[in-house]
This record gives sequence, structure tokens and C-alpha cells, in this order.
Amino acid sequence: MQKLVLLRHGESLWNKENRFTGWTDVDLSEEGFKQAKRAGELLKEQGYNFDIGFTSVLKRAIKTLHIVLEELDHLWIPVQKSWRLNERFYGALQGLNKDETIAKYGPELVQKWRRDPHELPPAITKNDDRYPGKDLRYKDLTERELPLTENLSETMDRVLPFWNEFIVPAMRKNQKVIVCAHGNSLRALIQYIDHLTDEEVTKLDLPTGVPLIYELDEGLNRIKHYYLV
Amino acid sequence: MQKLVLLRHGESLWNKENRFTGWTDVDLSEEGFKQAKRAGELLKEQGYNFDIGFTSVLKRAIKTLHIVLEELDHLWIPVQKSWRLNERFYGALQGLNKDETIAKYGPELVQKWRRDPHELPPAITKNDDRYPGKDLRYKDLTERELPLTENLSETMDRVLPFWNEFIVPAMRKNQKVIVCAHGNSLRALIQYIDHLTDEEVTKLDLPTGVPLIYELDEGLNRIKHYYLV
Repeated sequence: MQKLVLLRHGESLWNKENRFTGWTDVDLSEEGFKQAKRAGELLKEQGYNFDIGFTSVLKRAIKTLHIVLEELDHLWIPVQKSWRLNERFYGALQGLNKDETIAKYGPELVQKWRRDPHELPPAITKNDDRYPGKDLRYKDLTERELPLTENLSETMDRVLPFWNEFIVPAMRKNQKVIVCAHGNSLRALIQYIDHLTDEEVTKLDLPTGVPLIYELDEGLNRIKHYYLV
Repeated sequence: MQKLVLLRHGESLWNKENRFTGWTDVDLSEEGFKQAKRAGELLKEQGYNFDIGFTSVLKRAIKTLHIVLEELDHLWIPVQKSWRLNERFYGALQGLNKDETIAKYGPELVQKWRRDPHELPPAITKNDDRYPGKDLRYKDLTERELPLTENLSETMDRVLPFWNEFIVPAMRKNQKVIVCAHGNSLRALIQYIDHLTDEEVTKLDLPTGVPLIYELDEGLNRIKHYYLV
């Protein structure tokens, strides 16, 4: 039996302001910092330690992981960062307040954008300041990989290669793994591990900064899962 | 022309207490935290950014690098940690106050241990709590690689393979590199880059938390070097 720890980053400044964040590189709020610290304390109390950490290239996830590792006195483990673990790219919604968006587009459409795995939010153009092609950290991505908008299903499509190429091999070597990422990139992983339907995955809402433990068998099938509280 | 940035970690709690630290995983002091932040601010003011960071597996260096990268809004770059960039392993001197050590062994011997590249400080045994073989982070090292004591020349011998295997190839790919490490592991690198004699390298004293810039030509020979202040 092997344990995998999934952790959504602590509350960000835009979670707090109820804005669509996506790939915008927003910092943790003070509450988010505390949540990350608490996650580290919980993991420590229960005797967790890790051989490797995986995270996105967004600071709210990277800092959450650093805070947890510092709490565990495990800052020295290798940490691998990838854009593939980023939050879903929310297109032209990024930066907008969620209530204002609902007032503008109506609740049904916004709900669809948020939950229907095949529904695409309005796209940005390549001239938009939010276009990832303008950001140094994405300079090695192909044009195809640089999103203008993204549905949940596309998020899943770019998360899975990372899961298969890096996370699964680490677990096969019996390394203890923590993945610190985002609501939707973690949802994509969970849908895959738990064989959830689109219907089931849309109901899944991960709290910020609470470690989710997966106990897996040798075939990496779920035995059980639970939050650490 | 290529710039390489070398940075000794900010002041540690044991720098402050004037104790031999070596591989003991001592945290930054409050002053050390400030020095790291200042280093980041300086680098930012002067327009530095990096493609990759290298550091040791000791938290005073790792945290210094994280603080600098946060200041530069570059937390997303890959960071590679290695025991090969650790401080010199100070054997049985680790933890001792430097003045008390001088009182006990006499100033000449202590000066020799500190500065003569071939002089070995008293060794620990494998039963000692300070033996790195007892520390998880060194579990992949061979017994030969696990030090009981270390002279400056041996520090250099284990730093150089890392330089050649990871840092040089990154620079050959025109990646902008920052190395955040320790007084003696950086001294070893500088001796190599600058072709210093043992005599010359012993006179070299790196301040904590001050970026040292090396401008190198295509053959990675030094054009000039200077501190960023």
C-alpha cells in the first residue's frame, strides 16, 4: 500500500476576492499562508514525509509546497514544477469577479463554463496581456500548448501526460509523493485515479490547503481516500 | 559574454553564534533573512533574471535562494539541490564555538583546520549523531561519499563533478544561472574558475548574502567579477 498526498494551494488573494484566476500568478492571502502552515503541521503530526514534491509554475502552489516542506523540515527534497499542473486556463474570464460575470452572462452560462467539462469560456486573443505566450515561464511550450481558453476536459488532457511521465514512475519506485496544485488540475487527477464520470467530477470541490490522502494498491488503484483534518 | 551569479546564503543562527556549522542544517537568522531579501532586491534593480537555480540540501542556502527568487518573481524556475554544494563537512568541530575551540586546541591548529586545504579537522565516528549516514537526505550516497571529516581540497573534489555535470551544461545552453551555496563550496568553485593557488584561495572570504557576479567568455573563462552592492 502506498500513500499519495494531494494538496490544493492555500487561499489566494483572488479566491478571497472571488475572481476567476486561472494562470494569473496571484499570491497567497494571509489566510492561505496559514492554511499551508496548518497543512504542514497536520502532515507532521501524523508522521508524513516525502521523497519528492510536484507542483505547478504558479506561486500560490509553489509557496504552499515550500511552506509545507519547511514545516516538515524537508525543504531538501527535489521539487519538480510544471505548467501541466497549472490551474485550468480560464480565457477571458481571468481577472473577472465571479458575481459580475454572472450578472453579465447569466447564471446558467457561467455555471456551464465552470462545470461542464466540454464548455469553453470566452477565449482571449494573442494580443491579450494574459496570453501565456508573453510570459517567459512558458517559452518552451509549443503554440498548440499555449491556451487561449480551456475546458475541464482539455485541462485533464494536459495534466495526464505529467502524471504518467513523472508521478507514476516516482510511485513505482516507492517514492513518497506530494502533489501541490490547483482545484482543476487536481480534479483532473482525481477523475483519472477514481474513474469518475464527468457528472461525478463536476460535483467535486476541493477545499484550499487541506491534504487529501489517497491510499493506493500496487496497481495504483484506490483503496481509500480521506482528508487530513 | 555570460553572467554567472554566486551567492553565499544569508547569515545563519550559528554564524551569529560563531559556531562551526558544516552540514548541520541550521536556519537563517533574522539578519540572514534580510540579507537574502536585499540580495533579491539588488538583483531585481539591476535587471537580473535566471533560467535555473542550483543550491545545496541545507535550508540556509535553499531558503536564501527561495527568498531571492520570490523577490525576482521567479519562483517558477527549476531549482536543483545537491549535497555536493553543501558546506565543507567540519567533522567533530561541528557545533563547537570557534573561540572555545581556539582556547582548547590553540590558534595555530584551528587556523590550519580552517585554512590549510589539506588539513583535516578531528573526525566523527559513525556512531556520532552528526554522521550524515543517519540523515535521510543522504540515503543515496555511497559510504565513501559520506564524510567523517573533510578538508578544503576534498570539498573541492566533490563540488567539481557537480559543476561539470550540471552547471557548465546549463551555461553552455545559454541558461542564466544562480548558484546559492556556502562559504567553502563557493570557494571551491572560485578556485577552479579563477585558477587560484591554495595560498590565494585561503585568503578569500565571501560575505553572506552578497551576490558575486562572474562575467565569463565563451570558454567560461573569467572576464571580470564584482560584488553587487
